[in-house]
Amino acid sequence: MSQFDVVVIGAGPGGYVAAIRAAQLGFKTACIDAGVNKAGNAPALGGTCLNVGCIPSKALLQSSEHFHAAQHDFAEHGISVSGVQFDAAKMIERKDAIVTKLTGGIKFLFQKNKVESFFGYGSFKGKNGDLWQIDINSAEGVQTIETKHVIVATGSVPRPLPLVQIDNVNVLDNEGALNLTQMPAKLGVIGSGVIGLEMGSVWKRVGADVTILEAAPTFMAAADQQIAKEAFKYFTKEQGLNIELGVKIQEINNVSNGVTVTYEVNGETRTDLYDKLIIAIGRIPNTKGLQPENVGLAVDERGFVVVNENCQTNLPNVWAIGDVVRGPMLAHKASDEGVAVAERIAGQKPHLDFNTIPWVIYTDPEIAWVGKTEEQLKAEGIEYKKGTSGFGANGRALGLGKAKGTVKVLACAKTDRILGVHMIGPMVSELVAEAVAAMEFKASSEDIARIVHAHPTLSEVLHEAALAADKRALHG
Amino acid sequence: MSQFDVVVIGAGPGGYVAAIRAAQLGFKTACIDAGVNKAGNAPALGGTCLNVGCIPSKALLQSSEHFHAAQHDFAEHGISVSGVQFDAAKMIERKDAIVTKLTGGIKFLFQKNKVESFFGYGSFKGKNGDLWQIDINSAEGVQTIETKHVIVATGSVPRPLPLVQIDNVNVLDNEGALNLTQMPAKLGVIGSGVIGLEMGSVWKRVGADVTILEAAPTFMAAADQQIAKEAFKYFTKEQGLNIELGVKIQEINNVSNGVTVTYEVNGETRTDLYDKLIIAIGRIPNTKGLQPENVGLAVDERGFVVVNENCQTNLPNVWAIGDVVRGPMLAHKASDEGVAVAERIAGQKPHLDFNTIPWVIYTDPEIAWVGKTEEQLKAEGIEYKKGTSGFGANGRALGLGKAKGTVKVLACAKTDRILGVHMIGPMVSELVAEAVAAMEFKASSEDIARIVHAHPTLSEVLHEAALAADKRALHG
Repeated sequence: MSQFDVVVIGAGPGGYVAAIRAAQLGFKTACIDAGVNKAGNAPALGGTCLNVGCIPSKALLQSSEHFHAAQHDFAEHGISVSGVQFDAAKMIERKDAIVTKLTGGIKFLFQKNKVESFFGYGSFKGKNGDLWQIDINSAEGVQTIETKHVIVATGSVPRPLPLVQIDNVNVLDNEGALNLTQMPAKLGVIGSGVIGLEMGSVWKRVGADVTILEAAPTFMAAADQQIAKEAFKYFTKEQGLNIELGVKIQEINNVSNGVTVTYEVNGETRTDLYDKLIIAIGRIPNTKGLQPENVGLAVDERGFVVVNENCQTNLPNVWAIGDVVRGPMLAHKASDEGVAVAERIAGQKPHLDFNTIPWVIYTDPEIAWVGKTEEQLKAEGIEYKKGTSGFGANGRALGLGKAKGTVKVLACAKTDRILGVHMIGPMVSELVAEAVAAMEFKASSEDIARIVHAHPTLSEVLHEAALAADKRALHG
Repeated sequence: MSQFDVVVIGAGPGGYVAAIRAAQLGFKTACIDAGVNKAGNAPALGGTCLNVGCIPSKALLQSSEHFHAAQHDFAEHGISVSGVQFDAAKMIERKDAIVTKLTGGIKFLFQKNKVESFFGYGSFKGKNGDLWQIDINSAEGVQTIETKHVIVATGSVPRPLPLVQIDNVNVLDNEGALNLTQMPAKLGVIGSGVIGLEMGSVWKRVGADVTILEAAPTFMAAADQQIAKEAFKYFTKEQGLNIELGVKIQEINNVSNGVTVTYEVNGETRTDLYDKLIIAIGRIPNTKGLQPENVGLAVDERGFVVVNENCQTNLPNVWAIGDVVRGPMLAHKASDEGVAVAERIAGQKPHLDFNTIPWVIYTDPEIAWVGKTEEQLKAEGIEYKKGTSGFGANGRALGLGKAKGTVKVLACAKTDRILGVHMIGPMVSELVAEAVAAMEFKASSEDIARIVHAHPTLSEVLHEAALAADKRALHG
């Protein structure tokens, strides 16, 4: 029976990174994953993020942005085009090629780092002395391997909506939403989270009539509400997304010519017919096939594997990381937990600060933040000051034709230490990196204000917001 | 006679920022500027950068990038267009509108901050007790004002080429290059600096045959040569710019059907005929009308106003900042010197570190760096280690369709402190901000390696390069 130092279950952004890092640290490492490619004929590493999540959605967003620019922005630049046509199937082909390239990349990295790759579902079988026994279940049967350490990195799956079955023909989850080869004339989306907003944006840009139904009464409740309100205005008034908040879904029917959704909003009951309906109401931890009960691995009532701050479970040498444990369901949080666990196994003392983990939503404008929102600071009774600056008069943003958005810096009223940075605007997905680095160094808003920012760049808006927090905005 | 605490001569990115900051600090402040708008019928603040430099070039770069994408990238995204046409005059109109908006913005900021704005050339007249007398010369005559402090911020002008007269019809400087309303079928550019590369890129993208003639034997000698070599390959082999190095210009003739340039390269003499020729062989300090000799203000043999590290000249209470003094001719360096001088006048002790001033070139891919190059470290005998990572397997870059380029982190071999970060790739103009912030905090490469970077972002390539410098690249 094969024996390993470390076996990682799951090859998403948490698992594959943990496996590589463990192997680099000298451990004999295996990684078990049951993911298959879109054709269903070969294993595909990378998990949800790479196959049916973050990466493919970015590809579609760019394609749809080009199409939108050709129709709406080109004239101003002096570019005339005629007969602008969109072939959704080709857009999907391009996306698939990117996914294939990157999943192949992980396979290559596993070989290079001598991570042994197993295809199938990993499950806990039992214990043999100090070693955990892990079964690998696939169509070819069951294989058992033994290991000193186990890292559970099984990720998450879409939260089901009891009212309807996902068929990925008319009623879609993230996977189906990323593989529509024809534009739906009318698209419904249940849930205004990251997936709902990004996929809604893709199809709106290419011409679909898009309605997003959200149960919560507040738009983007996790985000700073100043940013959320600005985003809501852009998405609805400027871009024409129909976003309904405080919606109660009553009935969903997959009918011959589409999907009907009956819902209550503002005391009114409506029934809409959509060509396609995306269900994106959040994600739940995935422990499919894991059989934690075989070894007594603690799982909480919501299905999360229970871990402490160091990702240790209740069992010795069994760790868990990423979406299957507490904390934000973000790929980079999973990766960094993966690295930290591998280093802990090697006796190092890494530290991961949840407060400096950035959030990004790839709408247009993009939204990104790190640290506390104003609402959180108020709730916690922390005295703060704030500085804001807009992209409206930023030279680079004007050049790009994307001069919309705001950056807000929140700092401690007494010490000036930065507590949160909230952004909506062009490429803020990248601008947030400076804010994260600054917060990792416990920077004050004056620190950012005194750092030279290249001109003309979008990052000057962060600079200006920091100056404003220090009450000395130059361009305010 | 009007008396001021601070008079700033020049309203470019150094001068206007210095004036605003001085006014904010409670000084009675004036700013003198002779800039006029493109129509020549009204004053235009903002200097070269805003009117005929950084800002307008970014507008043209974006327009030409859209055009290029429509012709070369759209098909892959599933977008088909026909009859793609380019109207250079409209592109220039859009650029002019952006410039007008921003110059108007400075006027507004002057009013808001109570900076008195004078139109004309400022010159030193003499002294009245403790007060400097400054003449303001315009078509309407001469007006004299008095001030305790003077900040000289007169910027720079294009270095002339003795062989030919700029007429801005066929032989163009930066101003003429930014106002071509028709694509030149054949464009010549003398000088492969920022202006030459950016303007060459604009016209190449829309279809011109572009030749850049560079006197130096090395391409981008100031940049890290690994990055420079990669850039050269993209610009020449992939994009089709003709770049000739080690060129000796022999003769230039402005003829009826264009401009002929006779030059020697590799021992061979050639004569090219271009429709238009851009001269961009660097810039020299501008002291037009300043009359430093009237008060004995020290100017060196190259025309720079002589200053110490705090921007103090040889005269009491006379300061100079930006392109007219030593150091890199960069707008953000000028702005930050402006802020620092205003604060020094107010008795504060600001500090500006030239080693953390970023450089950006807005080609495609973009180029950006901060700190020392490998060549500098070798020359200075500093032991270093390096980590590089590419954009080729970066998910966001692949999504954007811009998966080319490299990030290199150079760190001290002993302390791991970051000494330089060099980038070529998509949006590195923005990624460099994190590197600058890190260097301001004297970060080690391990610091960057341990900071969570959002996925999927371009900034992950910097993260990976930092990991590589620490010999633990995850994706290397």
